[in-house]
Amino acid sequence: MTTSRITAVECLDIRFPTSRELLGSDAMNPDPDYSAAYVIISTDAPDQATGHGFAFTIGRGNEVQTAAISALRPYLVGRRLEPALADLGAVWRDLVHDSQLRWLGPEKGVIHMAVSAVINALWDLKAKRAGLPLWQLLARMPPEELVKLIDFRYLTDALTPAEALDILTKNVPTRGEREQILIAEGYPAYTTTPGWLGYDDDKLRRLCRAAVDDGFAQIKLKVGADLEDDLRRLRIAREVCGPSIRIAVDANQRWDISQAIAWIEALAPYDPWWVEEPTSPDDVLGHGAIARAVAPIAIATGEHVQNRIVFKQLLQLDALSYLQLDAARVGGVNENIAILLLAAKFGVPVCPHAGGVGLCELVQHLSMFDFVAVSATMENRTIEYVDHLHEHFTDPVITRGGRYMAPTAPGFSATIAPHVLSAYAYPHGAAWKSHE
Amino acid sequence: MTTSRITAVECLDIRFPTSRELLGSDAMNPDPDYSAAYVIISTDAPDQATGHGFAFTIGRGNEVQTAAISALRPYLVGRRLEPALADLGAVWRDLVHDSQLRWLGPEKGVIHMAVSAVINALWDLKAKRAGLPLWQLLARMPPEELVKLIDFRYLTDALTPAEALDILTKNVPTRGEREQILIAEGYPAYTTTPGWLGYDDDKLRRLCRAAVDDGFAQIKLKVGADLEDDLRRLRIAREVCGPSIRIAVDANQRWDISQAIAWIEALAPYDPWWVEEPTSPDDVLGHGAIARAVAPIAIATGEHVQNRIVFKQLLQLDALSYLQLDAARVGGVNENIAILLLAAKFGVPVCPHAGGVGLCELVQHLSMFDFVAVSATMENRTIEYVDHLHEHFTDPVITRGGRYMAPTAPGFSATIAPHVLSAYAYPHGAAWKSHE
Repeated sequence: MTTSRITAVECLDIRFPTSRELLGSDAMNPDPDYSAAYVIISTDAPDQATGHGFAFTIGRGNEVQTAAISALRPYLVGRRLEPALADLGAVWRDLVHDSQLRWLGPEKGVIHMAVSAVINALWDLKAKRAGLPLWQLLARMPPEELVKLIDFRYLTDALTPAEALDILTKNVPTRGEREQILIAEGYPAYTTTPGWLGYDDDKLRRLCRAAVDDGFAQIKLKVGADLEDDLRRLRIAREVCGPSIRIAVDANQRWDISQAIAWIEALAPYDPWWVEEPTSPDDVLGHGAIARAVAPIAIATGEHVQNRIVFKQLLQLDALSYLQLDAARVGGVNENIAILLLAAKFGVPVCPHAGGVGLCELVQHLSMFDFVAVSATMENRTIEYVDHLHEHFTDPVITRGGRYMAPTAPGFSATIAPHVLSAYAYPHGAAWKSHE
Repeated sequence: MTTSRITAVECLDIRFPTSRELLGSDAMNPDPDYSAAYVIISTDAPDQATGHGFAFTIGRGNEVQTAAISALRPYLVGRRLEPALADLGAVWRDLVHDSQLRWLGPEKGVIHMAVSAVINALWDLKAKRAGLPLWQLLARMPPEELVKLIDFRYLTDALTPAEALDILTKNVPTRGEREQILIAEGYPAYTTTPGWLGYDDDKLRRLCRAAVDDGFAQIKLKVGADLEDDLRRLRIAREVCGPSIRIAVDANQRWDISQAIAWIEALAPYDPWWVEEPTSPDDVLGHGAIARAVAPIAIATGEHVQNRIVFKQLLQLDALSYLQLDAARVGGVNENIAILLLAAKFGVPVCPHAGGVGLCELVQHLSMFDFVAVSATMENRTIEYVDHLHEHFTDPVITRGGRYMAPTAPGFSATIAPHVLSAYAYPHGAAWKSHE
């Protein structure tokens, strides 16, 4: 009997020059270059499958993220493959609780995003070897195995392993029905494409119209740089979309507490579906204070929430109406399963953050798993959609009529085409050389 | 008239093989190799002074920290020196709010510790050029200038610029008296030297005795790995020290909330002066719950608190009886001034975290500044002291009778001797080569 091992963990600095067109511009991020610290895990198994994952950054510093992923390499190279993939909870704990590396976080920032990239790559590999898209692999796992993936340290005052098991177990008999619904109908999406701050009013108007025509029931606008601009842009969006389309707004952490409350009250006449990232992602008390002051206007956050411990507190404080997990900021699939279970326990809908590069590709799997196995509902749930950079992926997201179609290819949809990896390698790829 | 500029930002990976003797062993960190991602800022000014600073890590990953510091280099090299040193608040904002780098935090983990290293090096340079130890430089600055150093974003619900100015201004008339007290008497210290988990009972007994003989009024013991061990070690320490020496304990984030409460209640008969890091540094609600449950036993935390925003919430929740700022985890001197002012506003004593490598050297300046200009008292204040690695510094701390003597050399006491930098360079310095 042969034993397969992990033979290599390649880490690439990939950057897309998105700032040239002001894609992704908001009140805090005027000119991002969407980037990936990209991981390819190779093995000596006969199937020659590779696992792909990445940490998403917005340009400068992607080399720091790459260095952090490389620091995890000794935990993986040489490791026996089958036991690792059979117990990704143990791998997660090894990576997160390394007693020296944890000083760099703990469980936050660059080092935690590195864990995310590596763990997600292992899930991609596991799903490819199982011949299933990740959402389906997860949605068919026994509840006991799913619970074993979670590190409950610092969670037990809000969610115990027994409670997690209960949530998962009660949905098992009806998992099959929901799988079929997903395959037939997909999952609701909303689009942020119209709303970047760098776009002029004509472009905003045109893109709002296109979003409605494409069947989206919700759009999102960036706000927070200038109140008069925000009011004008919301008025335009509301005119074009009509009263029945949901319009969410996103302040990208721009405000202090009292400023947030005043600004949100000024936007209230335009009926924002939610107000996203009103203040620092670290300020759980601040989010609670804002949520109480502006109720019933809904508060959402999550793309910069560093880990399950901060999400736990936001839920304990009733500070969120929508939880926006990110696939690649917290510790990958394992920690996101914990976050989905926390949200289910507290009855808060999860509406993942996406966009960037590859984030739509990843989060669709998490929301679909949530629908089949965790929350068991799509009510008030929707996944962010932004229409750029999908062409670089070998298994890009497919949206139709404002919905994500369920992925069918095996894996986590994380694979960027090899010619793209070479063209956008920073700083020597062709895409960067041509602008030197 | 000539203009001086910053000409180089050198960044070195320096590691001390402390794990060989179990220095620094605790419930979460069994074998740290105390390390510094070390920065030297050079200029073309005629005085040829250099600014030294560092991020402290515990070994693996120090290369990631070094990469993060290098990512800040473009903000500094070529910058005009005098305007930069005259407005370090502006430099801080440039570094922290770089719109792309901030994605790696924001304001936490590796990228924020990199800001700390660079900002502290600039303060070292400024103090050297002024011919003053940093504490004295800060303690003589006008309140208006100190307030300008602070980024009040996300703070104004707890501390406004006007409140900060009031706190500083009311102490101005008596600053001189307190400078003289410091120079004459120094500042209280406590020692963690006896308490590492890796030490056997005889060594614990011997080091407790030595601490009392050296004049320390407080010691600290690591706990949290095994309750029976903790009780035995506390009993030994209490026997040796007698009832009047304060014995603090430190769990290094080991517990969940209910576990923390039960464990602390079990330790209560030994009268712990404070219980440090009972749970995750990210769990402000958890700290609040523990503090309420175990009152009047005091809770302390801070060495892993990522920034002023989390400290703000701990204070708002009345979750801390002692605030343990770290000189090199949050964004350096500027952010620590904000934290000292927050603590003063809420009436909580600051007892800095130290030890590691060079942390004692740094924090003494912050506490002494606090005494002269911010809290204006030493009551219930004490600085951690650990007796290793000081010999590598050109201006090491001096303790006498359990007190830190006020530093007199110009600068921030951050300079490691050049021969040490070469001997402990990782992985090719002599100290590492000899153990290859």
